[in-house]
Amino acid sequence: MIETPSLVDQYCHGVLRTELGLGTFEAHLGRGEGPPAPGTTFFDTQTGFAVRRWCPPLLGLEPHCPPARYLARRRELGVLESGRRLLRGSGITTYLVDTGLPGDLTGPGEMASTGDADAHEIVRLELLAEQVADTSGTVDSFLANLAESVHAAAANAVAFTSVAGVRRSLALAPEPPGPGEVRGAEGRWLARRQVGGALQDPVLLRHLLWIAVASGRPLQLQAGAGDPQGYFGGFARATAGLGTDLVLLHGYPYHRNAADLAGVFPHVYADLGPALVRTGARAAAVLAEILELAPFGKLLFSSGAHGLPELHVVGARLFGEALGRVLGGWVTEGAWSLPDAQRVAGLVAAGNARRVYGLSDG
Amino acid sequence: MIETPSLVDQYCHGVLRTELGLGTFEAHLGRGEGPPAPGTTFFDTQTGFAVRRWCPPLLGLEPHCPPARYLARRRELGVLESGRRLLRGSGITTYLVDTGLPGDLTGPGEMASTGDADAHEIVRLELLAEQVADTSGTVDSFLANLAESVHAAAANAVAFTSVAGVRRSLALAPEPPGPGEVRGAEGRWLARRQVGGALQDPVLLRHLLWIAVASGRPLQLQAGAGDPQGYFGGFARATAGLGTDLVLLHGYPYHRNAADLAGVFPHVYADLGPALVRTGARAAAVLAEILELAPFGKLLFSSGAHGLPELHVVGARLFGEALGRVLGGWVTEGAWSLPDAQRVAGLVAAGNARRVYGLSDG
Amino acid sequence: MIETPSLVDQYCHGVLRTELGLGTFEAHLGRGEGPPAPGTTFFDTQTGFAVRRWCPPLLGLEPHCPPARYLARRRELGVLESGRRLLRGSGITTYLVDTGLPGDLTGPGEMASTGDADAHEIVRLELLAEQVADTSGTVDSFLANLAESVHAAAANAVAFTSVAGVRRSLALAPEPPGPGEVRGAEGRWLARRQVGGALQDPVLLRHLLWIAVASGRPLQLQAGAGDPQGYFGGFARATAGLGTDLVLLHGYPYHRNAADLAGVFPHVYADLGPALVRTGARAAAVLAEILELAPFGKLLFSSGAHGLPELHVVGARLFGEALGRVLGGWVTEGAWSLPDAQRVAGLVAAGNARRVYGLSDG
Repeated sequence: MIETPSLVDQYCHGVLRTELGLGTFEAHLGRGEGPPAPGTTFFDTQTGFAVRRWCPPLLGLEPHCPPARYLARRRELGVLESGRRLLRGSGITTYLVDTGLPGDLTGPGEMASTGDADAHEIVRLELLAEQVADTSGTVDSFLANLAESVHAAAANAVAFTSVAGVRRSLALAPEPPGPGEVRGAEGRWLARRQVGGALQDPVLLRHLLWIAVASGRPLQLQAGAGDPQGYFGGFARATAGLGTDLVLLHGYPYHRNAADLAGVFPHVYADLGPALVRTGARAAAVLAEILELAPFGKLLFSSGAHGLPELHVVGARLFGEALGRVLGGWVTEGAWSLPDAQRVAGLVAAGNARRVYGLSDG
Repeated sequence: MIETPSLVDQYCHGVLRTELGLGTFEAHLGRGEGPPAPGTTFFDTQTGFAVRRWCPPLLGLEPHCPPARYLARRRELGVLESGRRLLRGSGITTYLVDTGLPGDLTGPGEMASTGDADAHEIVRLELLAEQVADTSGTVDSFLANLAESVHAAAANAVAFTSVAGVRRSLALAPEPPGPGEVRGAEGRWLARRQVGGALQDPVLLRHLLWIAVASGRPLQLQAGAGDPQGYFGGFARATAGLGTDLVLLHGYPYHRNAADLAGVFPHVYADLGPALVRTGARAAAVLAEILELAPFGKLLFSSGAHGLPELHVVGARLFGEALGRVLGGWVTEGAWSLPDAQRVAGLVAAGNARRVYGLSDG
Repeated sequence: MIETPSLVDQYCHGVLRTELGLGTFEAHLGRGEGPPAPGTTFFDTQTGFAVRRWCPPLLGLEPHCPPARYLARRRELGVLESGRRLLRGSGITTYLVDTGLPGDLTGPGEMASTGDADAHEIVRLELLAEQVADTSGTVDSFLANLAESVHAAAANAVAFTSVAGVRRSLALAPEPPGPGEVRGAEGRWLARRQVGGALQDPVLLRHLLWIAVASGRPLQLQAGAGDPQGYFGGFARATAGLGTDLVLLHGYPYHRNAADLAGVFPHVYADLGPALVRTGARAAAVLAEILELAPFGKLLFSSGAHGLPELHVVGARLFGEALGRVLGGWVTEGAWSLPDAQRVAGLVAAGNARRVYGLSDG
């Protein structure tokens, strides 16, 4: 009844270019710090069950077939052909791809051609800063190059994202750090770091967030542990009215709090996706919770998928089914009208993302 | 199956006396710091959809009709007649009205006559203290007048409420501040403030809460951001056994935590209302969560409505429907007996509020 | 459709050996700091309603009969016979019994014979330390005896548990305290305490947890107030890879956060039980939330029951019914296959506990 013919995945990564064995595949289903516990497997998770539900039919197998059989069929088809079938079967029409993760992953261009879709790049701020540091000899040149580099990236990127240090850096203070503070932190970091070393200094991370805010491109911030009100509320207040949108990624289990913030601040948006991929058969229940407090113009679908095209499929299929079930249920009860439900489905699936990221209609 | 013939709205505000245009009406549907985001509207929220579901029929229109049509009909009837139809159609038989908000709002007397109901006043402590400060020249006279004023208000008011500083003031310490501490804070506040200036000093707010506790009237405390266990638990422990009831308002999304506290402390009660008005089609789901840990004698319905009689309607209708659906479902499953469900519905809708606030049977 | 023929209750207490009047029985239904509020009763809670649903039939009465009638029948049968009928009607086949609570409670042996089941002891660390302190004259002898005593207990106990100080002691630091720090804290505690005095010093509690970790037996930790990520995450990280499993007890309303931690750390497990006993008709909804992020091999059933065999019954019956309803629903929707659902039901009901605690197949 409720259709989402067009689907913008507003936050995902590329897929691996190499053939995968059972163990490597399984590792991508876990979220953890380490292997599965002895006697357990990451296939025994909502994500594992959802992959086994949605993906085998796209490769010509029965839903819920055993993992080993699925992996054998995947190898038989080859990584390219199975990736092609999976991505094209996902229903996603536009991918926004965070290119900041290591590994042999496809970029936006390859995602577009493999998936027969549009694709755009999301630039990860930490990685950009580390690349600038690798080629800047002094604090002065680093700071000048950094600002220039962010502004150059803004011309091509559809958004910026920051992951590692959001919670740590914003918990200290929401305002931009002063020039002296930034120079001091920068000097200490450059003196200590090896080429390729990761940026973790909270002052520099905060400086970086504020450069990105100045660029006007939407800024995606990965929610840290705990209630985002605690560390994100101050930043939202400090950036209100500046014209740059903030998108909170990955809020679960604080997705209701994230939705609340999207209702309070005009420039704050909430992401829907990974909560759905990770919760599988519970996707409709989690989606319904997010739909409590957030204005319907402030929610954005994403898969959050990384490495396996199966995760793009699962994200998209769970979302479509969950949205249809939740909104359809409200229409059946008389709580919503059908035209309203169809309009909201279109907004959350694609329309809001098109407006926020300035994408043309698919 | 489950009926709630009598409904005590244990926390609400009056309604605006002026005609409203589309923009002003819409602004009352938002919860935010600012206007709706560009390209969005506060009508696209659960509250907006719930207003369009429940209110048009009370003014002779189809449910879910477009906002502009609804507003035109509202103006056609006039603010008095539409308010009369809405409030009388809400099913609320008693209003407890917090009169502490600014604006051209109806008081308890007008709510009673317009809504053909009973109404009582809830006195907002901050406002009382500001009025006392406006007319007290010295610290000594302020402190004496404040205590007298709270006790005088207790004779007529059905409850006290405190909103602005609950979290900030109780987070520091739950106990009453010492006399020297109060005098110091008071002196600084009086010296700095202009006539009409708001009370925000955490020491004075805490002093005020403890004066209210001494009055014996139920004290309604607006939940702040975050888990109430953190800032409210200590105050609940410090006030246990003193004979004054505490009512936690507006707990969402920490409503389960608020219900938990109502189960742990004999004198703590939890409010149901605004979670329902704000979550609309999800009201039954949120209500069911509140009904997990709270003893059924510790929950109180409210609408939390402010400004628009539509919000009183939505609060009451969502509550009645949600309660019927949740309790009725448990009866159907065999988890509850029908007489138990009917008895609990009566408690939560009206009986608990009558007992806690000492109201006569409607 | 989904059966759980075997049920391991991985955390409970014994039952009272004395006849109970209405008031004493009611007191065991509350969770609070004090009696029920005036005009209310702890029978008007989800736990009270669940007891009235599940237990009267086991004593030959109608479900939902009035409390007084149930208590009269219970006295008529006698505490032994009613306990026998209740425990044997619960469906629990193995009890893991925390023997660390005061009161005239049955131990594991009596639970086994009364319930026609297996039973094993869980040793409460605080109590063990207090017993050692009662018989140790000096700091040196206490510290030596403590380590010896924990290791001796590990030979017979199926697990250790710590309740009182988990949050307070781990919030300070996750690592084991240094020897000087322990000696200092120990000296202060021994000097102050009376025979039988409770252990509350956070340094000693932390020392005790680390001795237990070294024993290799699973360690059950009672969740404190608030998000366990805050105080438990660091301890989970510090104990990763040491070969000792940690089981988080009683996470509600932070059960999703507990499930999340069980997904992140290979050696962390999450408990299901008391959330179900306390939430009654909502047990299926709460269980479904726990099943979102936790790998299915990391969840363990328990009743958390204490004092009343009715609570063992309610825990087991609610769990079985909730699990059947949740997993059965997913099978009906096509989200899970039936064999997968049956396998997961067996893991959560008994298989995971057998593996973690090294129990033989029932």
